[in-house]
Amino acid sequence: MTSSSDFPVLWPVPTRWADNDHYGHVNNVAYYAYFDTAVNAWLMSATGTDIRDLGAIGIVAETSCVYHRELSFPDLLDVGISIERLGNRSISYALAIFRRGEDGHQLAATGRFVHVYVDATSRTPVPIPDAIRAAAQALVPDPS
Amino acid sequence: MTSSSDFPVLWPVPTRWADNDHYGHVNNVAYYAYFDTAVNAWLMSATGTDIRDLGAIGIVAETSCVYHRELSFPDLLDVGISIERLGNRSISYALAIFRRGEDGHQLAATGRFVHVYVDATSRTPVPIPDAIRAAAQALVPDPS
Amino acid sequence: MTSSSDFPVLWPVPTRWADNDHYGHVNNVAYYAYFDTAVNAWLMSATGTDIRDLGAIGIVAETSCVYHRELSFPDLLDVGISIERLGNRSISYALAIFRRGEDGHQLAATGRFVHVYVDATSRTPVPIPDAIRAAAQALVPDPS
Amino acid sequence: MTSSSDFPVLWPVPTRWADNDHYGHVNNVAYYAYFDTAVNAWLMSATGTDIRDLGAIGIVAETSCVYHRELSFPDLLDVGISIERLGNRSISYALAIFRRGEDGHQLAATGRFVHVYVDATSRTPVPIPDAIRAAAQALVPDPS
Repeated sequence: MTSSSDFPVLWPVPTRWADNDHYGHVNNVAYYAYFDTAVNAWLMSATGTDIRDLGAIGIVAETSCVYHRELSFPDLLDVGISIERLGNRSISYALAIFRRGEDGHQLAATGRFVHVYVDATSRTPVPIPDAIRAAAQALVPDPS
Repeated sequence: MTSSSDFPVLWPVPTRWADNDHYGHVNNVAYYAYFDTAVNAWLMSATGTDIRDLGAIGIVAETSCVYHRELSFPDLLDVGISIERLGNRSISYALAIFRRGEDGHQLAATGRFVHVYVDATSRTPVPIPDAIRAAAQALVPDPS
Repeated sequence: MTSSSDFPVLWPVPTRWADNDHYGHVNNVAYYAYFDTAVNAWLMSATGTDIRDLGAIGIVAETSCVYHRELSFPDLLDVGISIERLGNRSISYALAIFRRGEDGHQLAATGRFVHVYVDATSRTPVPIPDAIRAAAQALVPDPS
Repeated sequence: MTSSSDFPVLWPVPTRWADNDHYGHVNNVAYYAYFDTAVNAWLMSATGTDIRDLGAIGIVAETSCVYHRELSFPDLLDVGISIERLGNRSISYALAIFRRGEDGHQLAATGRFVHVYVDATSRTPVPIPDAIRAAAQALVPDPS
């Protein structure tokens, strides 16, 4: 069972009013906005740089989400961030969304998010920038 | 009473599932996405150019909306576009949103949308680019 | 000049990655998502109730925004909330958006947001529910 | 190679201005809004009913997307819809996004989208409503 203690980073993302859809719960699309926001905000914070101005940028190649629990505004969420594969040109994140409940974190969703690094101008694949690799390395699980 | 025949341009914008909010109607914020999309799509079509690549870009300085009727996915909409003031450095649009009903257009909202043109790099105000001025001129009401 | 000290409530709303548009700044539409989220979250907090389950709900009748400063993810924002008119069936909010800068709050936008209360089922206008009126009263400026 | 002719339904979804993010292309999250909108709009059209008012509603249990090509406003898109598994209580859709190019459809993304049907009130799993099953049956590939 996925737990918030499995993640080296938990990034706070509050819900917004319009995240709720016709069925009175957070729309499935919004979960990806939480993923996207958490990964990029963490990258900016961990590298101390505006990653959008680097010569190479991370383009999203693949995403997925399994929904475990309904959410509803004004829920406060934490996105669990870990890295399952740090390649030469890509980073594959294992993510989860936790709702802050009265008795602690409640698992709401698990997902994957893959960034492929490309030259900011030509958009052809290139190695991961050093600043990003260093930050990502800290989230790679110890093999021992 | 505002009618769709008052507008020289009607730009189609279909609703999306997640435009509906907790109350089962289109969220107030989405109306501004319809405005934004219609004005920029019309500008691109009327000028035959990617306006985002011009030396001067239109930055939104002011917007407003009065809501007259509830909308709900999968409503099909047309955004009425007219120009109430074509200045040296700014364009003020008078907009409306019409729902395509069985008996014709139903007024759902009226609004204003003001673009101020700025240098794409320095973001300081500059004159409206010629291509955009020419397109906009065609929407300025005949003073007669 | 509008200052954050002019507002009895400041509600935190962080930006999201996708709030930024093609021009590398927060899209004009997102400001309304900040307004919408702040007003409703404050109402839920101040009343201690899920306002969506009351017999009368607040429908947005009118909104507007004047944009003073560009914003960009990952900016942290506070939405200033005050009430300029507390009517029998409607509440008119005067709002502002402040960016948390190194030297304190920077004004990014000012706006208006009008809720009209309607019966949750029939959607016809009704008086403001007592719980909401009591919360709103606390934000009405002292006439002295 | 996935082709638009592989899909029994192609549902049109135009891009919106704010779908583009900081990198000047459609944000990864928006692709899920295209999926969500196309599946639900098709369901409403094919059943001739407002599926949100049925006793059982489709809740999203799982989604995924592989991104093959960058998109940018004002691209016009068609979402390919097919059904890979029609179960007792769930429907698994195989989806794709095609850009309308000058030389025909260009594949932009492929994805999966799983609806589980639940009682609209209790939110516990129930069989797929008859009207939806009949519509879905028409999209199940012929086993021959």
